[in-house]
Amino acid sequence: MEIRLETIEIPVDDDKVCGTVLAPAAKLPGVLFVHGWGGSQERDLARAREAAGLGCVCLTFDLRGHERHARQWETVSRDENLRDLLAAYDWLVREPNVDPAAIAVAGVSYGGYLASILTTLRPVRWLALRAPALYRDEGWELAKRQLHEVTDLPAYRRERIAAHDNRALRACAEFRGDALIVESEFDETVPHQVIENYVAAFTKTRSLTSRVLAGADHGLSSDDCMKAYRRVLVQWLTEMVVGAREGAAQAKLDQRGPGDPPRSDQRREGGAIIE
Amino acid sequence: MEIRLETIEIPVDDDKVCGTVLAPAAKLPGVLFVHGWGGSQERDLARAREAAGLGCVCLTFDLRGHERHARQWETVSRDENLRDLLAAYDWLVREPNVDPAAIAVAGVSYGGYLASILTTLRPVRWLALRAPALYRDEGWELAKRQLHEVTDLPAYRRERIAAHDNRALRACAEFRGDALIVESEFDETVPHQVIENYVAAFTKTRSLTSRVLAGADHGLSSDDCMKAYRRVLVQWLTEMVVGAREGAAQAKLDQRGPGDPPRSDQRREGGAIIE
Repeated sequence: MEIRLETIEIPVDDDKVCGTVLAPAAKLPGVLFVHGWGGSQERDLARAREAAGLGCVCLTFDLRGHERHARQWETVSRDENLRDLLAAYDWLVREPNVDPAAIAVAGVSYGGYLASILTTLRPVRWLALRAPALYRDEGWELAKRQLHEVTDLPAYRRERIAAHDNRALRACAEFRGDALIVESEFDETVPHQVIENYVAAFTKTRSLTSRVLAGADHGLSSDDCMKAYRRVLVQWLTEMVVGAREGAAQAKLDQRGPGDPPRSDQRREGGAIIE
Repeated sequence: MEIRLETIEIPVDDDKVCGTVLAPAAKLPGVLFVHGWGGSQERDLARAREAAGLGCVCLTFDLRGHERHARQWETVSRDENLRDLLAAYDWLVREPNVDPAAIAVAGVSYGGYLASILTTLRPVRWLALRAPALYRDEGWELAKRQLHEVTDLPAYRRERIAAHDNRALRACAEFRGDALIVESEFDETVPHQVIENYVAAFTKTRSLTSRVLAGADHGLSSDDCMKAYRRVLVQWLTEMVVGAREGAAQAKLDQRGPGDPPRSDQRREGGAIIE
């Protein structure tokens, strides 16, 4: 995250006063939202609104198989939806005012599974997963819907899976950015073991934040749970985005070398009255 | 604060997925810091670093009579320092990436006094005053230092002053933006009555936030008090800046008309498995 530090002279009367500018670069962080299976971008807009409040460029989108492409519901594959995600990511980083080195991806359930895999294909600095789903690697080309028929997903999701045995978990094991993982306390679709598998996979992250939404089901069907998730996500994004800008600013100030700020808003000067 | 809301189509394979961009305008809020008498911009840099973290363009500067212009310490007048402040303000709003409609000014003591008067001469949306000093209007052209000799400031600062009887208080009475006023619990230079006079003057503000720094002296000579002030200032700036962006984003979303977001991250579709 670029920060500009510049010492300037401001003309006043026939004199000049000395000033210092500390400014974020014109480019903004980007936040990409990935909805879950059966969801839509509509659900992400309230989250996007708050992320935009933090000064981020936000992109939500509808995976194929949903909304306008609902006819593909039965046939769309993980591979196609991953290409949707890649297309959305590439669109976002091509935005002129987006900083490609400061991209966050927030995925829900199936969207979290795809977001994890995305980190092996594109640079992702911040990864937020809510109730990320897990699927066997087999049948990658199959229709996503078929996976629920030809494989025993509920059983698979009760297993302890080593990171190297699953594509999404392998991605998490290689992820070196900051990760947030949010679990629903009463999730019957993505049971606790799946979350445990993801958390265990995150071994190289710069930071890991894991939270449980008390009383929540998988889909966050209550408004309170929805708000609770939004709070967790936005708090984490604030820490990441604001923290990154502050860190960059501090680094610039440190480069200025000595002159560590005096400790008080005043100082005595030969007994001069001070205020 | 401008926010861009745009519905887009993202090409993927020989298809298109539908997306929504929610992005802050390229222009950023500006924060101008004004130090107190006997202070310097150096003290404001730590605050500027955090404001930059919020995505603001920050400007600190040294009033004449200080630092490089210390030789003018005995002769510089309020009028000249006010022109310094005007010059710094005009420099900041001329920055191409600064939003002139989103300027915050944070002044300490004498700098708070000047910042109050600035609001009658330039558009200020957010005004933060820490232990703002108060002076009689008389002798405007006198050297600032002389005011302490020819007028009984300590007595004046124990008086209840009506807003219309003082230039800085009149400015506050006309101020329609958001105001923060921070008092030091044990301030012998700017006693509580002065803060009371300022608070009483703020009758037309959009919002007023008043805080007391427990155990603090006028100059915040302890690190803890310095940090406490920084926390108060940054929390307030966060509420103002992030809140303004969110409000603008919400307004855009509302303009989209109906289609209030479904309440859950999932929905049932003909008993389809949902995740």
